[in-house]
Amino acid sequence: MTIIDIITKKKNNQELTYEEIKFAVLGYINGKVKDYQMSALLMAITINGMTEQETFDLTEIMLHSGEIIDLKNLYPVIDKHSTGGVGDKTTMILAPLVASCGVNVAKMSGRGLGFTGGTIDKLESIGNFNTSISIENFKEQVKKIKVAIVGQMGNLVPADKKIYALRDVTGTVESIPLIASSIMSKKLASGADAIVIDVKVGNGALMKTLKEAQDLANLLVKIGKQHNKKVVCLITDMDEPLGNAIGNSLEVIESINVLKGKGPQDITELVIKLASYMVSLGKNISLDEAEKQVIENLKNGNAYHKFEELIKYQNGNINNIKISDKVITIKSKEEGYIAQINALELGELARILGAGRLNKEDEIDPKVGIILNKKVGDYVKKDEELLKIYIEEKTVDEQQLHDCFKIIKDKVDKNKLIKTIIN
Amino acid sequence: MTIIDIITKKKNNQELTYEEIKFAVLGYINGKVKDYQMSALLMAITINGMTEQETFDLTEIMLHSGEIIDLKNLYPVIDKHSTGGVGDKTTMILAPLVASCGVNVAKMSGRGLGFTGGTIDKLESIGNFNTSISIENFKEQVKKIKVAIVGQMGNLVPADKKIYALRDVTGTVESIPLIASSIMSKKLASGADAIVIDVKVGNGALMKTLKEAQDLANLLVKIGKQHNKKVVCLITDMDEPLGNAIGNSLEVIESINVLKGKGPQDITELVIKLASYMVSLGKNISLDEAEKQVIENLKNGNAYHKFEELIKYQNGNINNIKISDKVITIKSKEEGYIAQINALELGELARILGAGRLNKEDEIDPKVGIILNKKVGDYVKKDEELLKIYIEEKTVDEQQLHDCFKIIKDKVDKNKLIKTIIN
Repeated sequence: MTIIDIITKKKNNQELTYEEIKFAVLGYINGKVKDYQMSALLMAITINGMTEQETFDLTEIMLHSGEIIDLKNLYPVIDKHSTGGVGDKTTMILAPLVASCGVNVAKMSGRGLGFTGGTIDKLESIGNFNTSISIENFKEQVKKIKVAIVGQMGNLVPADKKIYALRDVTGTVESIPLIASSIMSKKLASGADAIVIDVKVGNGALMKTLKEAQDLANLLVKIGKQHNKKVVCLITDMDEPLGNAIGNSLEVIESINVLKGKGPQDITELVIKLASYMVSLGKNISLDEAEKQVIENLKNGNAYHKFEELIKYQNGNINNIKISDKVITIKSKEEGYIAQINALELGELARILGAGRLNKEDEIDPKVGIILNKKVGDYVKKDEELLKIYIEEKTVDEQQLHDCFKIIKDKVDKNKLIKTIIN
Repeated sequence: MTIIDIITKKKNNQELTYEEIKFAVLGYINGKVKDYQMSALLMAITINGMTEQETFDLTEIMLHSGEIIDLKNLYPVIDKHSTGGVGDKTTMILAPLVASCGVNVAKMSGRGLGFTGGTIDKLESIGNFNTSISIENFKEQVKKIKVAIVGQMGNLVPADKKIYALRDVTGTVESIPLIASSIMSKKLASGADAIVIDVKVGNGALMKTLKEAQDLANLLVKIGKQHNKKVVCLITDMDEPLGNAIGNSLEVIESINVLKGKGPQDITELVIKLASYMVSLGKNISLDEAEKQVIENLKNGNAYHKFEELIKYQNGNINNIKISDKVITIKSKEEGYIAQINALELGELARILGAGRLNKEDEIDPKVGIILNKKVGDYVKKDEELLKIYIEEKTVDEQQLHDCFKIIKDKVDKNKLIKTIIN
């Protein structure tokens, strides 16, 4: 067996065996398979696809490429995942909300690259918040306060880490089997018993069509079944940003507002739905009963108190969240209904302001970002505020911000946030 | 424009513009586009193909990536090319044969990698033969004796050099547009006025089916037309090795035999046909008239004398060609007609003996190789000689040699060597 044989087989659209996938993946980790060979294989997979069996095998091989966290003593632990989108701050809200309902949430999160921000970057805009915790202390924390949110720990799924970095620079991100095996190998290695996944669909997401999102969701559920893990996927809209805030400190503040019951309607609705599934799975109760508890804990302050407890436990100072005081208000040049907001482009502009990274080494500025004053379906008058930008060193062309909005005369319905649920 | 956009476009099977192809190719030469990005693009091209326009553009961009040799003062110069096969020593024979008919042959050749040997490696088994000559001396030599065969000179088509090396290790060799642009950019940069190309088809060749070979030939002719160069393609059989000898010194000796009119029938037939096209193009005479001259020059010794002159001019000692004296005769275990000879596998076994390279750094041993005593269509008796192997340090399993032959009871026709001609 040589890597060239394996690449050639996939190029010719033939099914790879478990042994062949293992040879490629483990060879890549140990350096025998070169970057340029793995990228050729990844492109062949991206174009020709993978069978379900190949995807199961790839997930299995990546999962066992490194450490696997054992959370048996905390059973049941419920995890969540989002395929990522502009303004997606749900993890920060969900983790304490679900924990406040009595369910263990042991959450490992990533940093952001490109237009999607990472939960860890967002939380680090809270002064002193510590996201580097040992596996032992992480488990101890969940046992004590039912919730922890940390960065990457241990040597989990090194194969995915190396392959993902390569996909990012070779045009091979948009492949359903590669996305599914990447997500599931990480989730399975993190030790949770059930996983709720927010599969984003739309212009600001990896999955552009409902069909693609459904295919991905079905695959995620099937991989879960293979490993006796319950997986629930919510397919949700990412045609406009989620909530009103884009940028790290701004998103933390918006999250606090949601936890206090004062957040934007769209993200509040989404968080309630995701949390309900998590609580239902974690407590083995009906979805209706779970939703009652979730709404109750948002109202009675328990969710927000759990957030405060989480921040304090991880050394953060919730009174130390800095936002820029250089604020520019962008006003509408026309009047009408907001028909579209280009999430992808707004995310990109926020990145240029300093809220995201283009390269791994880039430093993020937590103080900058964008606050939307209008969402799809809203009416805007001429000279009424569309959005504010919070800037430090870099700014963006105002016209580019205007171009993110499509304003028309006819009335427009609000986007339907939750498209469908697959489990 | 970023390389990721370009890769993604080709991944989505869209046509690339001239500017996009240029960005990728020149970026790759100057190091801004990485190996792993180019290999992803090459795989997308290999699977999704290229339009004719893209192939024309790629050829043009590669051609202008380096030096272009000007042979105007030698007009007309006729070049030949072979897509490569096991036992293919035609260049060594054709160059002096065609020159002996009064046509200028200024031939730049390569070294071999894998199962196909390179003309330069073969010629270097002649003691002292010098293949490193300056462009000025090369032109001077063609002017004086009408023929020169040298290795790579100058900085011709550096883009192809770098891309070819990458294709070789990433499973992206078998792509008709990539093969066509690679061949034609090199041929155009070498300055010839017309080119005769031997497109090999069969188990021992890159093109496995007649359809693929025809597609490649048509594309080569079209690229030639774009550049006002006459291109003639002969599609010829490579289901069995060409001639009887595989291995460097052994192939030189067989070439001398052909030039003396005592060579194997198949290669002699092919050489006469290729030479006739070259002479017809070079002297602007009919193919029949050219063929007469070619046959005459094989008979009257002029072709062989031109070969001697060529070797002497390039410092070689024709009396110093060494072959191994460790010879093992392999005898048939059964009797019947030879139905198939696996050229690819015999080439690979010859490589293992030391006649070829697996890696660029490997040293070739000119003394080793294989001499076939039987070809497809021949009858063999039990214990009659099938072949001889000439070995030095390494040997191969005799059973593997036997396995290269398929022997059956029923009479078998000889392979038809020249399948079709496209111009």
